Amino acid sequence: MTKPVIRKEDVLIEALPYIQQFEEKTFVIKYGGAVMEDEQLKFSVAQDVTLLRKIGINVVVVHGGGKEITSLSSRLNIETKFVDGQRYTDEATRDVVQMVLAGSINKDIVRRINMHGGRAVGFSGIDAGFVKVKKYNKTDLGLVGDIVDVNPLLIKNLLREKYLPVIAPIGIDEIGTVYNVNADIAAGAIAGALDASKLVYLTDTEGVKSKDGLIRHLTKEDTEKHIIEGTISGGMIPKVESALTALESGVQKVHIIDGRVEHALLLEIFTKEGIGTEIVSE
Amino acid sequence: MTKPVIRKEDVLIEALPYIQQFEEKTFVIKYGGAVMEDEQLKFSVAQDVTLLRKIGINVVVVHGGGKEITSLSSRLNIETKFVDGQRYTDEATRDVVQMVLAGSINKDIVRRINMHGGRAVGFSGIDAGFVKVKKYNKTDLGLVGDIVDVNPLLIKNLLREKYLPVIAPIGIDEIGTVYNVNADIAAGAIAGALDASKLVYLTDTEGVKSKDGLIRHLTKEDTEKHIIEGTISGGMIPKVESALTALESGVQKVHIIDGRVEHALLLEIFTKEGIGTEIVSE
Amino acid sequence: MTKPVIRKEDVLIEALPYIQQFEEKTFVIKYGGAVMEDEQLKFSVAQDVTLLRKIGINVVVVHGGGKEITSLSSRLNIETKFVDGQRYTDEATRDVVQMVLAGSINKDIVRRINMHGGRAVGFSGIDAGFVKVKKYNKTDLGLVGDIVDVNPLLIKNLLREKYLPVIAPIGIDEIGTVYNVNADIAAGAIAGALDASKLVYLTDTEGVKSKDGLIRHLTKEDTEKHIIEGTISGGMIPKVESALTALESGVQKVHIIDGRVEHALLLEIFTKEGIGTEIVSE
Amino acid sequence: MTKPVIRKEDVLIEALPYIQQFEEKTFVIKYGGAVMEDEQLKFSVAQDVTLLRKIGINVVVVHGGGKEITSLSSRLNIETKFVDGQRYTDEATRDVVQMVLAGSINKDIVRRINMHGGRAVGFSGIDAGFVKVKKYNKTDLGLVGDIVDVNPLLIKNLLREKYLPVIAPIGIDEIGTVYNVNADIAAGAIAGALDASKLVYLTDTEGVKSKDGLIRHLTKEDTEKHIIEGTISGGMIPKVESALTALESGVQKVHIIDGRVEHALLLEIFTKEGIGTEIVSE
Amino acid sequence: MTKPVIRKEDVLIEALPYIQQFEEKTFVIKYGGAVMEDEQLKFSVAQDVTLLRKIGINVVVVHGGGKEITSLSSRLNIETKFVDGQRYTDEATRDVVQMVLAGSINKDIVRRINMHGGRAVGFSGIDAGFVKVKKYNKTDLGLVGDIVDVNPLLIKNLLREKYLPVIAPIGIDEIGTVYNVNADIAAGAIAGALDASKLVYLTDTEGVKSKDGLIRHLTKEDTEKHIIEGTISGGMIPKVESALTALESGVQKVHIIDGRVEHALLLEIFTKEGIGTEIVSE
Amino acid sequence: MTKPVIRKEDVLIEALPYIQQFEEKTFVIKYGGAVMEDEQLKFSVAQDVTLLRKIGINVVVVHGGGKEITSLSSRLNIETKFVDGQRYTDEATRDVVQMVLAGSINKDIVRRINMHGGRAVGFSGIDAGFVKVKKYNKTDLGLVGDIVDVNPLLIKNLLREKYLPVIAPIGIDEIGTVYNVNADIAAGAIAGALDASKLVYLTDTEGVKSKDGLIRHLTKEDTEKHIIEGTISGGMIPKVESALTALESGVQKVHIIDGRVEHALLLEIFTKEGIGTEIVSE
Repeated sequence: MTKPVIRKEDVLIEALPYIQQFEEKTFVIKYGGAVMEDEQLKFSVAQDVTLLRKIGINVVVVHGGGKEITSLSSRLNIETKFVDGQRYTDEATRDVVQMVLAGSINKDIVRRINMHGGRAVGFSGIDAGFVKVKKYNKTDLGLVGDIVDVNPLLIKNLLREKYLPVIAPIGIDEIGTVYNVNADIAAGAIAGALDASKLVYLTDTEGVKSKDGLIRHLTKEDTEKHIIEGTISGGMIPKVESALTALESGVQKVHIIDGRVEHALLLEIFTKEGIGTEIVSE
Repeated sequence: MTKPVIRKEDVLIEALPYIQQFEEKTFVIKYGGAVMEDEQLKFSVAQDVTLLRKIGINVVVVHGGGKEITSLSSRLNIETKFVDGQRYTDEATRDVVQMVLAGSINKDIVRRINMHGGRAVGFSGIDAGFVKVKKYNKTDLGLVGDIVDVNPLLIKNLLREKYLPVIAPIGIDEIGTVYNVNADIAAGAIAGALDASKLVYLTDTEGVKSKDGLIRHLTKEDTEKHIIEGTISGGMIPKVESALTALESGVQKVHIIDGRVEHALLLEIFTKEGIGTEIVSE
Repeated sequence: MTKPVIRKEDVLIEALPYIQQFEEKTFVIKYGGAVMEDEQLKFSVAQDVTLLRKIGINVVVVHGGGKEITSLSSRLNIETKFVDGQRYTDEATRDVVQMVLAGSINKDIVRRINMHGGRAVGFSGIDAGFVKVKKYNKTDLGLVGDIVDVNPLLIKNLLREKYLPVIAPIGIDEIGTVYNVNADIAAGAIAGALDASKLVYLTDTEGVKSKDGLIRHLTKEDTEKHIIEGTISGGMIPKVESALTALESGVQKVHIIDGRVEHALLLEIFTKEGIGTEIVSE
Repeated sequence: MTKPVIRKEDVLIEALPYIQQFEEKTFVIKYGGAVMEDEQLKFSVAQDVTLLRKIGINVVVVHGGGKEITSLSSRLNIETKFVDGQRYTDEATRDVVQMVLAGSINKDIVRRINMHGGRAVGFSGIDAGFVKVKKYNKTDLGLVGDIVDVNPLLIKNLLREKYLPVIAPIGIDEIGTVYNVNADIAAGAIAGALDASKLVYLTDTEGVKSKDGLIRHLTKEDTEKHIIEGTISGGMIPKVESALTALESGVQKVHIIDGRVEHALLLEIFTKEGIGTEIVSE
Repeated sequence: MTKPVIRKEDVLIEALPYIQQFEEKTFVIKYGGAVMEDEQLKFSVAQDVTLLRKIGINVVVVHGGGKEITSLSSRLNIETKFVDGQRYTDEATRDVVQMVLAGSINKDIVRRINMHGGRAVGFSGIDAGFVKVKKYNKTDLGLVGDIVDVNPLLIKNLLREKYLPVIAPIGIDEIGTVYNVNADIAAGAIAGALDASKLVYLTDTEGVKSKDGLIRHLTKEDTEKHIIEGTISGGMIPKVESALTALESGVQKVHIIDGRVEHALLLEIFTKEGIGTEIVSE
Repeated sequence: MTKPVIRKEDVLIEALPYIQQFEEKTFVIKYGGAVMEDEQLKFSVAQDVTLLRKIGINVVVVHGGGKEITSLSSRLNIETKFVDGQRYTDEATRDVVQMVLAGSINKDIVRRINMHGGRAVGFSGIDAGFVKVKKYNKTDLGLVGDIVDVNPLLIKNLLREKYLPVIAPIGIDEIGTVYNVNADIAAGAIAGALDASKLVYLTDTEGVKSKDGLIRHLTKEDTEKHIIEGTISGGMIPKVESALTALESGVQKVHIIDGRVEHALLLEIFTKEGIGTEIVSE
């Protein structure tokens, strides 16, 4: 018995309705965690975002940088302090954050995308001062910033010229002090400022899960209920909260998907069922 | 034993270097014959050209229309006359040609492409008078025109606005008389006027064949030798002659491929080996 | 006794205030009937629209095609059926309509305008899918469409590049089926979508007539009263109804004038009194 | 017996081929003398240039101002001195020239053109310093300037925005001194800098005349011969010399016509035979 | 004891925050009186406006012309009549006004600015008919106009192309009659039509003064109170009234400063304290 | 005795001819060494480049980073190896170079410029892959790159949108490997690719010196002679060699000035005599 063969050309053609649907839309893609530590995943994400750009989607990448920051801090004997379970950012740590995010990770992502022809250009919220922050003031976390304003002009200029912006989540306050910014929150705020169609979180988990397994679809109301009931908890909370904020700022859909799956972005975007959890306003 | 499975996302990623390579290039695609008579092929060609447009290639379609012209002529009791084996175009036939090409086939192709989101706009050499001809004068074939000039401005305007031009091969002379134009020759002249990267003939044959089988690669010199030696003959001659003229006008590569193969265009463009015969200057 | 001589240069100068008044305005001109059957009238209309375009008016032509459709149908032994006095459009008839309108008449008009330098480009509602329709559902007339939407983008792009669009009244539905559309109604819908200053119907009658003769000026209110009272009846009803719809969509003035008078368009536009009937909102 | 009647609409249509021919071409029109002193001629020239602008010709007007300068000088008791039959321009005279040309005549012409909707904007070679001169040095004529350079940028900017530039012939030297410039020569230099299609001199004579009457057509060679032979002499010399210089700078045709004939410009441009004398390179 | 030395480079750097603040803002600068009669002041104002233009401010100059008009009128034996203390403008005077303003003063200012590289272009409200007026009708002052409308298009076109517009305050009515317009009022109306950030009056006084000396800051309310109380009176009234009208049209701040101080404009704009009186809405 | 006082407004006015001269010109400014280690100098350079941008100069900053790289390497226990007196860049060092240049120094410069409103955007040769290199092959220095190509498109896009590009000298080869690039050479190559008017090296020395003191002016020929004769030696050689290469690529003038002098850039640009050494083609 011969197995049915998938023909390459058919796969391309199946992509056509999705290409048609997302043409000239803006997608903000946040990634961090495992995706940034596995050589094969780094390769495949670079391919994915380049492909999305080439078929006419305005792709913007926002990246995090956890492990590399910790590793460089430790090599430099900078102590890592925690306040209520959150990393305290003193000046020495902030300088490490800036070097690692803007100098090491950002350029590494840019380089990989450009190897596939993606015309990536990397920068941070310091450039053109486009991410304005003030000191986070719920607890004292040192130089951790709360986003006050995102000016989308530089990103829009680069998208119009067909570049692919890659953004390190660093902000700047009124008097020019540099702050560390949570990358999930930065991605949400940037997506909001760009009126993005989609905000996609590539994470180290399958999506939002309940005791019955992966939740495929959530409304804002559902999400708030799950937070109260505790189904959504821990590290997932900043993601879904950024998602809700982004939806309020005009983003149409937020996806939380498993970045550990190769080409997760393509599977999400080019298949009917998608993968992971999607969150919509209603 | 399990067979290796082709994953959809891998196929998309394999397309990336080709997308990169052909971005913003211009392809002129001529089709006629079998491709225009089989419902499934018509469907798949419409998908293919739409996909090429969406990934940033400036696609221009030129079509023929043989059988439908003969069929309508016969229904209207217009006699078909041949001179030296070529169809003689009297006024009545010319009117049928114009109706069938510009009214029936052109709009049918446009409609099919638009069903896949291709933003096709159909017109003929009469529109904006962009294909200037004079009477063909080697033998008297009636209202058959020799192309004198192709003004690419209208096509370029439409491409810039992201439309997909579909062109019926009809020309007009100095005093406003409409002429029938050979579609293969029209495609070559249009490709030349646009400085196209590729001119692709979707034909009813595998490509240029010698007694040893399909020839994969031809230079101008090879081609001229094959014509003299008689390896290339019959209906293939106008195609290769248009190909040579197009190469002289600045087209980079001409492909003669088998339109009867579903998604032949994608196979040609997105695979390393390609299909059919390619002709280059040297 | 010597007669006063009209000097040519004075006539040109008299046109100046009208040129000034209509500069950069959009005029939609519908023509059909007698104008399309008389060689001399076809010539003079082509001159008129070219002249209007040259002096800076954004001219858009919409044409009908009654007699030629009937004639080709009859030559092809396609029966013409009537439902409640209206032509029933089965598939065979629809194919004839498409060929005649888009292939024969449209290109003939384009050709004639271009002989005077008018830069005409012809297309139909199928092109770029710009006239969206659904099946007419008051009675079953087969493939006769009700206009759902007119996307003016393609027309505007062409006008901006100084082309003169000539449009065949054919529409397309959601699933890609081609429909016959009443040309008067199409002209009104296109004028509305373009926010035209003027919509001019070149007809086979002097204008709207009452028992006291030609009515020179009608408001919407007058028109509705005349329809109720029966002064306006028969073939004039679709024209005035399209006129009223067009006025509601933002068209400033609708003219119903006698296309049988040579240069009727110029007389309407370049003389103080105008000719025929004008309909305004109030 | 009834005389044939010229119908207005036919006159407009007769203009069409000329409109077609001159679309987007640049015409520089110099006028002075009688045309500027007769109320009816001033009215008709304003109409003519407005009409030319409206039908798509890039019209630039350059004017002179002889009599009004003399008249104001005399009212102000400024003596008029002649050197070798040419007016000597001392400082007081130069100030009068500037006031009359830039303040009185220029604005009067602008005003008249704008009454017909012509969007005229008046300025001088002082504005944007666009006419650079040095002191005329063949004889000492005081502040009379020789044109060194014409920067066409300001004129081109205004033409692109559909204004009609009206230019007073005043120039400025390296150190900012204002000079009187011969208007015929200024018109020729401006036409050259704009690569004008036509340079038209509206004069107080029928054209260039020989003893056998008006000469309709002159080549450069003819013209030079006529100067040597003395057929062309006196006040006609600066005009034909400017004409020859303009032809050398790329102007296609120079016309010397009778400005005393009402609508002379229209007669020249819209009739086959034209009026006056035309001068071409060969 | 050595005095502290001001270093040139420090002065430039001190200007930076002001340059930053006013970048791409529009300033309308009115000047007349003493500034126009002193050679040194004329030189320094030309430098100042050029400098402001070069650092990115959209500068528009409006000028008056009192003394020169009176002087030329007297040389031409045109009697100067006063009505209720205001100059009556008969036709002869209006012609003098036009010649002096548009021909003499306007071009002189343009010339001086261009000597510093300022790209000035001079024109009047007659050009493009951009200042529409009607006869002033509170008392009969002859051809003195009340501004009805200012069309800012020509000025905006010139600013966009980096020219510096210099405007003579002359207006035109519906039937093409030229009127004299008060320069202070014209400046206010032009500033309003341009949504200027600043309107600066360079006057022959230090600013608005009360018995306690110069008033540095006035709100609209203050100003109205001072007019009622008589603190503001005489020639200052048209200025402050124009100022109030300009503020109502959207101008942000009006300055009345001492034009007799060299570089008064720079002192106003580049120093914290400024000079003269500023008037704001509240 | 009172000393003459420099008035601020006079200093601004003195700048006018220089502003005029350099408007819309491109200046590439390289800085490193002492300028980057002194807080006051960092502040004043940020002011200077912002001021130059605001007055219409297209400023591009290229920076080095010597000491900070050595310092971080040492903190990370990465050994610094020298080959023929030049630093050997192994992979670990290259990663430090990338982090320090692109993450730390680049963003610090950007931040400082933006505090003065300069709209700086920082990036490196990795971004958009705009600095293409191959391995330096005269001696083995590890990952030190020779510049093969500089694509100026990204810089030009940003300049057109009025951003101020700040560039870290890092390059990328064909297969995506990151290389350290000499900052002096990078600045020269970037200046060449941009057809810069000036290339300014802010150095830790007064300029090029001979035994007779500072050399103010050098031609290419002089420079080559001085190298041969040994007057120019050591660390000055890469600077003057980059200067000569830049002059060959079309840069008009190269300046080597003393970055330790506050506002050295302004002194060079806004004073007649300038400071340091200038090198020109001839």
